[in-house]
Amino acid sequence: MTKPDSKRSSVALVTGKPANAAEEQVNNGSSDPSVSGSPHHALTPATPTKHKSAKQVSRDNLSRRNTESEVFDDGTNTFFWRAHTVTVLFILTCVLVYVTLLEETPQDTTYNTKRGIVASILVFLCFGVTQAKDGPFTRPHPAYWRFWLCVSVVYELFLIFVLFQTVRDGRQFMKYIDPKLGVALPERDYGGNCLIYDPGNTTDPWHNIWDKMDGFVPAHFLGWYIKTLVIRDWWMCMIISVMFEFLEYSLEHQLPNFSECWWDHWIMDVLVCNGLGIYAGMKTLGWLSMKPYQWQGLWNIPTYKGKIKRMAFQFTPYSWVKFEWKPASNLRRWLAVLGIIFMFLLAELNTFYLKFVLWMPPEHYLVLLRLVFFVNVGGVAMREIYDFMDDPKFYRKLGQQAWLVAAITVTEFLIVVKYDPRTIMLPIPFFVTQCWFLGIVLILSWTLWRFFIRDITLRYKDARRRKQEVTGDCGRPHGNGGTATPSGRSKLNGISESLRHRKS
Amino acid sequence: MTKPDSKRSSVALVTGKPANAAEEQVNNGSSDPSVSGSPHHALTPATPTKHKSAKQVSRDNLSRRNTESEVFDDGTNTFFWRAHTVTVLFILTCVLVYVTLLEETPQDTTYNTKRGIVASILVFLCFGVTQAKDGPFTRPHPAYWRFWLCVSVVYELFLIFVLFQTVRDGRQFMKYIDPKLGVALPERDYGGNCLIYDPGNTTDPWHNIWDKMDGFVPAHFLGWYIKTLVIRDWWMCMIISVMFEFLEYSLEHQLPNFSECWWDHWIMDVLVCNGLGIYAGMKTLGWLSMKPYQWQGLWNIPTYKGKIKRMAFQFTPYSWVKFEWKPASNLRRWLAVLGIIFMFLLAELNTFYLKFVLWMPPEHYLVLLRLVFFVNVGGVAMREIYDFMDDPKFYRKLGQQAWLVAAITVTEFLIVVKYDPRTIMLPIPFFVTQCWFLGIVLILSWTLWRFFIRDITLRYKDARRRKQEVTGDCGRPHGNGGTATPSGRSKLNGISESLRHRKS
Repeated sequence: MTKPDSKRSSVALVTGKPANAAEEQVNNGSSDPSVSGSPHHALTPATPTKHKSAKQVSRDNLSRRNTESEVFDDGTNTFFWRAHTVTVLFILTCVLVYVTLLEETPQDTTYNTKRGIVASILVFLCFGVTQAKDGPFTRPHPAYWRFWLCVSVVYELFLIFVLFQTVRDGRQFMKYIDPKLGVALPERDYGGNCLIYDPGNTTDPWHNIWDKMDGFVPAHFLGWYIKTLVIRDWWMCMIISVMFEFLEYSLEHQLPNFSECWWDHWIMDVLVCNGLGIYAGMKTLGWLSMKPYQWQGLWNIPTYKGKIKRMAFQFTPYSWVKFEWKPASNLRRWLAVLGIIFMFLLAELNTFYLKFVLWMPPEHYLVLLRLVFFVNVGGVAMREIYDFMDDPKFYRKLGQQAWLVAAITVTEFLIVVKYDPRTIMLPIPFFVTQCWFLGIVLILSWTLWRFFIRDITLRYKDARRRKQEVTGDCGRPHGNGGTATPSGRSKLNGISESLRHRKS
Repeated sequence: MTKPDSKRSSVALVTGKPANAAEEQVNNGSSDPSVSGSPHHALTPATPTKHKSAKQVSRDNLSRRNTESEVFDDGTNTFFWRAHTVTVLFILTCVLVYVTLLEETPQDTTYNTKRGIVASILVFLCFGVTQAKDGPFTRPHPAYWRFWLCVSVVYELFLIFVLFQTVRDGRQFMKYIDPKLGVALPERDYGGNCLIYDPGNTTDPWHNIWDKMDGFVPAHFLGWYIKTLVIRDWWMCMIISVMFEFLEYSLEHQLPNFSECWWDHWIMDVLVCNGLGIYAGMKTLGWLSMKPYQWQGLWNIPTYKGKIKRMAFQFTPYSWVKFEWKPASNLRRWLAVLGIIFMFLLAELNTFYLKFVLWMPPEHYLVLLRLVFFVNVGGVAMREIYDFMDDPKFYRKLGQQAWLVAAITVTEFLIVVKYDPRTIMLPIPFFVTQCWFLGIVLILSWTLWRFFIRDITLRYKDARRRKQEVTGDCGRPHGNGGTATPSGRSKLNGISESLRHRKS
């Protein structure tokens, strides 16, 4: 009986799926319903119970080890990691008593309505941050991710409300948030020449390039750095990056600010900003998947330097899962990856179209807040989608954050369509339609070939080869005859077979 | 190695804490990080994984067996018990597309605002019912309890909004829900004589009794039947029932409809309606704690009669926990039980005061809806409070539903105080003040005696007795000398010591 020893050891080997993994955990202990131990036995110090992650070494987790980092956690749990449900309730009550009973209520109905709505949102956040379901991320603190989950709910409900207003009311409704909003945006001129070297300008012939070197260059770089951390795959990032430039080309007849010079599209954006961002992101991903995940309690670390390092590392992930999207391994994954790319691009387009239809100036703080919001929820959502896609038996639900991000993207798009159907319906140039048609046909035929025709061909070839083997050489043992597939398969679906056999 | 056998058996012995138990589960398997099995092993049919409850036989659960029923579950899980996150998202999108793009938006701003709010609430319910955290109850379906959780959130946010309005605006705001509301209630005359046999009335001298025999008699009975199922303790029910009549006596100078005849208070209410309700409730509790909890999949039952019985039993609990409040076992439990009784009585008073200050006629459907709401959330909240109180190491958070019910009760009370401070502050008659003062002094002194003075006395006596034992009879083994307590202890704290030693 080695159990008590392994439980009492101060360093437990766990993998980092604290909440979800526990739900489906296979308990390997005996199911004998007899009394588990004497009271004296039950009184042994129960250090590992302080941290629930410290004892989740299920067989499911073990089989996931190939894409997931190993984690060492001594299970120390300090004040900040305890639940404070009753404390929060008490403080909330005190604040409510003060604000509503001791302060005098203003007589202004509009002001009170606003205040009531803000108070409702704050109470909802109080509830959600203490009580909402935890997601896959735990660092720096699970409450941080619960907070963003609640913000997603509030944002989605706000979008739904806006969606149900008339176009005029909806735009005027923005005035309640900021009185400067609700004003039509001025028409801007995005024309200009595209000469890299402009001989007509005598003071500075390179002025076109310097003009482009504005705040958007670091913004693009940072954006793609974060997107790479979210998607965790070089190929998918590159495809999305290039696809977005194609979308800009295709939609510049609708939104004038999509029209850029050819070298701005391909050199500045794709190669320099996005490319460098993706490169830096991939380097970080490499570091994250290689770095050791050792979590010691702050008080168990002897040196000051170690303590400070531990504090800084609190802002790095608890563990790391390498994403292996493997789009070509089966039809389900292929469609899922296509869907993810589609939703990702839709969310990117929404950024521009939503500003346009709700009359938001590009430099407004709400635009920036929306991006900060997406940075925070995007990572959680993508991880949840990956988990759901990778192992739907284990993660039987699409994650809550992924559900909300999908709903938000759809609602934003519906607002765009409802608020400005004219712009959306502007006729697409014939050349652009042709290109998209060609692209869709190519994808469809590849899908058809890869998942239907190729399978039939392979099965036929396989049957013929086996027949030959049986007739030709009966004595030779044919070990892997049943699952023989052509060698030299690409990385896309290389490891998939062994993974799909995993017990879930 | 008996594990695979116990996992493959079709009848697994589990206790019924599907969600929470899993979170803290001690995994008794080895923590060897080596590969758990060959692919062939991983391909064995994994029937028990269909239902997560079917494999949670942790040591914690085993030690809870004495208050919790045993459950047999074959782990069958049909379509209705699968998660439908993606389906719900898809249907939601379709409905949104239809309502907002294909239907024309009305030009009426007020109507649109209402519609937007209702739509937001519905989307929130869609999200919550599919994605919110599960509570302790699973029958008839976890989604049912998630629905009521979301309703609690919406109701609490509504209350917060009302709390932040001025009294006039708040009462007029009710007009948005029902145009008939927002009108001052007529003054009612609750006077009358209290003769059981009224000789002055020649047609029917018993008319006073028949007058009281209205719809409130079955309502009181049913109410206390449900409250008994919620509290699951004869003594606490009786105390709350009697205390509420005292409160009616004490507050009849504020709310005239609290004034009743003495025999209405004590015979009709406490003895007949409440008493019978509690009696019936206790009988049901006895049946629930004795009945076998055997859950077979509908398709595994051969007979039609069995299938119908199984369907009906879907509306009974999955498992049963007997509540042993044991208020006298330690100070923490004593204060918790006092707090529960206090909040329970406050929630009961809110029913009457809230109607009064928000100008709700007693027969309005919202009053009934509020009671239906409390019936549904009260049971969950009480179970969560019991779990949190009973084992705060295991249930480290106060349950979400309990948190919300507490917040709702407090907010309702704050609305009452804010909307009608005049009524609340009406001077209490001197005799009533005296009675309450006496009661509070009695409780305080008992608390002081039981948890402070008695302990010191016991410890002193214990030390003296041990000293005598050591000096008088050195040869006799003194087995239980260290924890000797006076015998004949009441049921209130009888089993507590062994329970508190439980490993958690």
